[in-house]
Amino acid sequence: MIVHPDYPPTLGATLIGPDRCRFLVWAPHAKKLELKITGPTPHVFPMQRLDRGYYELTLDGVGPGTEYFYRIDGQRDRPDPASRLQPHGVHQASAVVDRTFAWTDEDWHGIPLRQYIIYELHVGTFTTAGTFDAAIEQLDDLCELGITAIELMPITQFPGGRNWGYDGVQPFAVQNTYGGPDGLKRLVNAAHKRGLAVILDVVYNHLGPEGNYLPEFGQYFTNRYVTPWGSAMNFDDLDCDEVRRYFIENALYWIDECHIDALRLDAVHAIYDFSARPFLQELAAAIHLEGERLNRRVYTIAESGQNDPKLLTPSEVGGWGLDAQWADDLHHALRSTLVHEHSGYYMDYEGFSDIVKAYRDGFVLDGRHSKFLRHRHGRSVRDIEPYRLVVCSQNHDQVGNRLMGERLTALASFEQQKLAAATVLLSPCLPMLFMGEEYGEPAPFQFFISHLDENLVAAVRRGRKHEFASFRWKHEPPDPQAEETFQRCQLNHTLKQGGHHRVLREFYRALIQLRMSETSLTFPDRDRMTITSHDDTQTMIVEHCTAGRKLLLIFHFGAAACELTLTEAPGTWTLLLDSADPRWQGPGSELRPGEAARSTSTLHLMPFSIMVHVQPQA
Amino acid sequence: MIVHPDYPPTLGATLIGPDRCRFLVWAPHAKKLELKITGPTPHVFPMQRLDRGYYELTLDGVGPGTEYFYRIDGQRDRPDPASRLQPHGVHQASAVVDRTFAWTDEDWHGIPLRQYIIYELHVGTFTTAGTFDAAIEQLDDLCELGITAIELMPITQFPGGRNWGYDGVQPFAVQNTYGGPDGLKRLVNAAHKRGLAVILDVVYNHLGPEGNYLPEFGQYFTNRYVTPWGSAMNFDDLDCDEVRRYFIENALYWIDECHIDALRLDAVHAIYDFSARPFLQELAAAIHLEGERLNRRVYTIAESGQNDPKLLTPSEVGGWGLDAQWADDLHHALRSTLVHEHSGYYMDYEGFSDIVKAYRDGFVLDGRHSKFLRHRHGRSVRDIEPYRLVVCSQNHDQVGNRLMGERLTALASFEQQKLAAATVLLSPCLPMLFMGEEYGEPAPFQFFISHLDENLVAAVRRGRKHEFASFRWKHEPPDPQAEETFQRCQLNHTLKQGGHHRVLREFYRALIQLRMSETSLTFPDRDRMTITSHDDTQTMIVEHCTAGRKLLLIFHFGAAACELTLTEAPGTWTLLLDSADPRWQGPGSELRPGEAARSTSTLHLMPFSIMVHVQPQA
Repeated sequence: MIVHPDYPPTLGATLIGPDRCRFLVWAPHAKKLELKITGPTPHVFPMQRLDRGYYELTLDGVGPGTEYFYRIDGQRDRPDPASRLQPHGVHQASAVVDRTFAWTDEDWHGIPLRQYIIYELHVGTFTTAGTFDAAIEQLDDLCELGITAIELMPITQFPGGRNWGYDGVQPFAVQNTYGGPDGLKRLVNAAHKRGLAVILDVVYNHLGPEGNYLPEFGQYFTNRYVTPWGSAMNFDDLDCDEVRRYFIENALYWIDECHIDALRLDAVHAIYDFSARPFLQELAAAIHLEGERLNRRVYTIAESGQNDPKLLTPSEVGGWGLDAQWADDLHHALRSTLVHEHSGYYMDYEGFSDIVKAYRDGFVLDGRHSKFLRHRHGRSVRDIEPYRLVVCSQNHDQVGNRLMGERLTALASFEQQKLAAATVLLSPCLPMLFMGEEYGEPAPFQFFISHLDENLVAAVRRGRKHEFASFRWKHEPPDPQAEETFQRCQLNHTLKQGGHHRVLREFYRALIQLRMSETSLTFPDRDRMTITSHDDTQTMIVEHCTAGRKLLLIFHFGAAACELTLTEAPGTWTLLLDSADPRWQGPGSELRPGEAARSTSTLHLMPFSIMVHVQPQA
Repeated sequence: MIVHPDYPPTLGATLIGPDRCRFLVWAPHAKKLELKITGPTPHVFPMQRLDRGYYELTLDGVGPGTEYFYRIDGQRDRPDPASRLQPHGVHQASAVVDRTFAWTDEDWHGIPLRQYIIYELHVGTFTTAGTFDAAIEQLDDLCELGITAIELMPITQFPGGRNWGYDGVQPFAVQNTYGGPDGLKRLVNAAHKRGLAVILDVVYNHLGPEGNYLPEFGQYFTNRYVTPWGSAMNFDDLDCDEVRRYFIENALYWIDECHIDALRLDAVHAIYDFSARPFLQELAAAIHLEGERLNRRVYTIAESGQNDPKLLTPSEVGGWGLDAQWADDLHHALRSTLVHEHSGYYMDYEGFSDIVKAYRDGFVLDGRHSKFLRHRHGRSVRDIEPYRLVVCSQNHDQVGNRLMGERLTALASFEQQKLAAATVLLSPCLPMLFMGEEYGEPAPFQFFISHLDENLVAAVRRGRKHEFASFRWKHEPPDPQAEETFQRCQLNHTLKQGGHHRVLREFYRALIQLRMSETSLTFPDRDRMTITSHDDTQTMIVEHCTAGRKLLLIFHFGAAACELTLTEAPGTWTLLLDSADPRWQGPGSELRPGEAARSTSTLHLMPFSIMVHVQPQA
């Protein structure tokens, strides 16, 4: 039985004995609430109204698989806002679920955040079957690559079977077509057995546009603020405490019952909350307390566009106390440097010098004027340990929000792809890959849906066309509702077995091994890291100094070869890795791994290359 | 010439030489902007567009009194958003103003916030003439009373001549009917000559509904958030930096050019801003820097309903760094205790025990559930020095937002009024009076306007009736637009010369003298203050202990007399003040001032009374 001092997760249908189930729902908008057990001969039972708008009923003769609705005001049958399973989709009955599971991960206590090498994946397109069970088959490969944490894009119930996940409307229900809650638990259990942590992307800023019945139950939403996706969730308006409870119970459900290790909190800049006790602070505290109780390392990782150090600042000094956040600045600087993107939000990035700034300071927009946002943006995060910023060269948004959903593979050369990978995997921040990038998967990641409401489908189609109206299309943009769009995005794992796909994957593997074996990369420390850069040649030299060992990373973002004399790094350096090595299908390298370069000697840097040298210290 | 490193206040019309004027305005919405000098033969001059949507023009032949409009897109003549004077009201031309003034307050450097005894006044009704000059005539009386800071309700240009001030639409223009900028400067100069600080109420969360032409100039407003008064000011949306500049220049204008000592920031909970660098933090920093530059003590005092210690927390640890804030909880607790108000927001206060809590902790709602707001509200402010919370038993809102605008005078007995005064003036927080309360002014303070737009007047009338629809009216509510409503609110200063009015005022004076002469009241310290309370008799005993002296405040909120034995405060105590003393028209006192009570002896507490005793320490 799950017990948390503040938030006993008792919302929804909870089996409390053989054939005995307790139903609890917050429905202050209902004048009358009944439980309807569906089946050939439906039965309707009155529920008891409790304080603060809750309704409760304990019923015998209810076991796993029993399907039910809540009947509002004697008129409307609606699925449970805290449904654990929607066997027939978002509009139909909820099902009672047996919450027990044959876990075999008793020895799992999580891994330190600092050791996360994150692999973001979308369950539906990660494999051809598109299920949790099919994903399990790929875990050994990910371990071999060096991945330590998989991050699942949202998996809560959405309309139909094809969706990125951000249109979920039953935040406690695991998507039926993926395998439901038991499927998720099988995947998490299998990951833990292999030493892999599991991050789950959860959406607490909005609900999807189809199948959202929550407003009929209570004031889950507020009109005070407007999000890009409609009404904002209610975190500081009338009765917000119950909405907070709903989402905090949700977070604890994932961690406690599903053994999830970290929550990736979608777009927290759209969680509007002006209260003295911010919801996100309360959420982080509840999750950390739960981790203590369970003796497991659990984390909160926010997605935020605010570039605000407050998110990661301890609550004792007024921050929210989250563990990490996405920091897209390095991605944008990389893109603007390598493939010369300058429209939209890329207009704020000046190329090479901003890669240097991202390495040095974490945020690029840390108070400077943003042409895109048309105001000064962000604040310095330099005092916060860099591993608490998650960086990438690709992710679902950066790939998928392009008109054609092309990956970097389709835009950058092989040498550039290797350089981008190294920039992420050897950075002082926490690296994240997007499924398939490690072998240069050619499949795009396009926007896809499978809504049941035809008007909504038409609106989404119009919206996509409108969003990209300013682009000159080479191709007709993909139809989000078409099944082919979805199928086009499925990975082809057989590719990684040969050709340049295999080489690229081996290079990723070498980078991860390097990160995990070099203390100064595993435990990056801004005070022991010196960065010098040459704007003319676009060369960035990062020197890490730890006890017993110096490490030199030479990133060359120039399209032309150039020479570099290591006058600023005296002594003899031994090559550990060179992306230009023919071993990595590069154009050729002067030195072989293990060979030494003297600091007075001149290094030849090939276009878009990365070299790593090491020097033992007395 | 005014120079601030970040915000040179150059918006508006600035005389930069004899007969030479520079005009600067932010008007990105204008495709074309012209300056129109009005007069018998108007002249129109093209303005030059600068970066970021500013328009500029320097013109010869322009001196003080020249009247002008900005002409937008060759079509619409609009007053200057940074107008310093609107000689003919909100819709008409702006006037160029000579910013120099014959100041005689060179020796004035402000007074420490801790020594503020605040007197809130509304210029229009404080005197019969309703001008700054007429207010000057009352300053000697306020000094004699012990007041150290006057607080002016908003004085920026509003429609007509009658308004509380919160409908101002030209934030830089001093209301013409009050005496314009020169009138204000005369008042401030006269105050400073008498050792009085001047606080100005400024409204940065909205503009009034009539005469607001700012949206025609630029995106001063955002649609992201909704305030009770319409669109929110834009502090974090596109181009918000220019809106911030506009208001920060405004703040510095008051402090620098008008010698204002502190800004009371209206309803900062309606200043919506999710940025990493909050506007209010930036504003506080700019004001404090300006104070340093001018070698004057200047302060920011927020009105906030959020009960959030973040406002007063230093910016170094994530707060906003404001100096003080209004804390209404003591007022509400007092009202619910003395006159049994329990509707609206009063429903959250439990009477006597909450007076004790407000004394002890500052906020009453510091995390507990609010029935009125329907969620937990606030956070503890206990770690912040109590003098940074402004408290009162009456203010313009608490009086004026009642249907009939009755003061406490009309609702509470004479003994209760004295007790309320002492609860405020002897509290560890910073006391504020509302004009006239010190002599029990019988005039109400009702809501009044003098809009020129008939539709708006009708809407306001409907709005007031709607707001009070749930009340059973004994009288027809006053018509906000009627001149009699305004006149009814004017003070009658002659009253204070006699009868119980005079006695009450003398009692206030004695309380202020006591506060300023007793170190433990002037420098309240929660760590040296012990509070014991008896719920049965509604008695609160506050013991202050400073070097050399103990002070005992015995507040009795019970309607029945009772006895108190000072067993918890051993030794011999000497009476300093007793509100029941016939000297204060009380029902009678056992002891005379200077007489001693032994701690074993029993004190007789009269209904609604306050006693102060002192005990020298070894």
